[in-house]
Amino acid sequence: MALAERIEPQSKEPLRLWLRLLTCATAIEKKARAMLAERFGTTLPRFDVLAALDRARDGLTMGELSAQLLVSNGNVTAIVARLVQDGLVTQAQDRDDRRILRVKLTPKGRRDFRLYAAEHERWIEQLLSNLNEREIQDLLAGLARVKTSIERSGL
Amino acid sequence: MALAERIEPQSKEPLRLWLRLLTCATAIEKKARAMLAERFGTTLPRFDVLAALDRARDGLTMGELSAQLLVSNGNVTAIVARLVQDGLVTQAQDRDDRRILRVKLTPKGRRDFRLYAAEHERWIEQLLSNLNEREIQDLLAGLARVKTSIERSGL
Repeated sequence: MALAERIEPQSKEPLRLWLRLLTCATAIEKKARAMLAERFGTTLPRFDVLAALDRARDGLTMGELSAQLLVSNGNVTAIVARLVQDGLVTQAQDRDDRRILRVKLTPKGRRDFRLYAAEHERWIEQLLSNLNEREIQDLLAGLARVKTSIERSGL
Repeated sequence: MALAERIEPQSKEPLRLWLRLLTCATAIEKKARAMLAERFGTTLPRFDVLAALDRARDGLTMGELSAQLLVSNGNVTAIVARLVQDGLVTQAQDRDDRRILRVKLTPKGRRDFRLYAAEHERWIEQLLSNLNEREIQDLLAGLARVKTSIERSGL
């Protein structure tokens, strides 16, 4: 936190906003990493992969999976290989096109993920518990404007 | 973007806020990574290290440097070693305690960083250019509340 506060005064407003956004995201991410390690002995990149697969009924190709991850994450192949070893994930041929491999959760993978996800949601609620409903709604609306601005920026 | 939109409807508000925050931060980070690579052949972790050193007049110990980084980042030692090789950074003994090594920018390192930073600021301005001053101020205030909430959460 100290860092962003120290540099913000000299910076222009959009840069201040970006730094504060990054500071908040990094702070929550750090807590989530620590809690996942401490409570479940797992990692945020693994959690992120399981979350993407939990939302995909028919599994995902490796390309689709990479595209859906929220946490930037160098080595999806290694993470999936490890999840296969641990029995949380399988790789199987696509029904229609046998050249395509689809990654899916196993029943154990789904059970474990649901357990992590429920706890994760509780941590997030606790981390944000000083904000009232109105403040959360305002932030959701403001961040939706940020998303739109990025998409329209042409960069 | 599609991902967060798809999962958000079922999620409770704090979790939606966290996912949207992460989506925005990831989107800007991805653009910054691409632009740094394309325009300067450099990386966001390198930029982040140079930024921390640019703010520290007397340099930083490796521990201080790690603590100041905004981008989560496994291998600070390797990044610094590479920056030393490239002549952007030096490691020298602390004046008062010769057992301590301090990492500092070289004049070339400072020049290069300032060039990257000016461009980086322009990209951020462009990415956020659809937001007016009021929207930016509201987000800065809301995110300050998020920071406070995280700090007070006890997690």
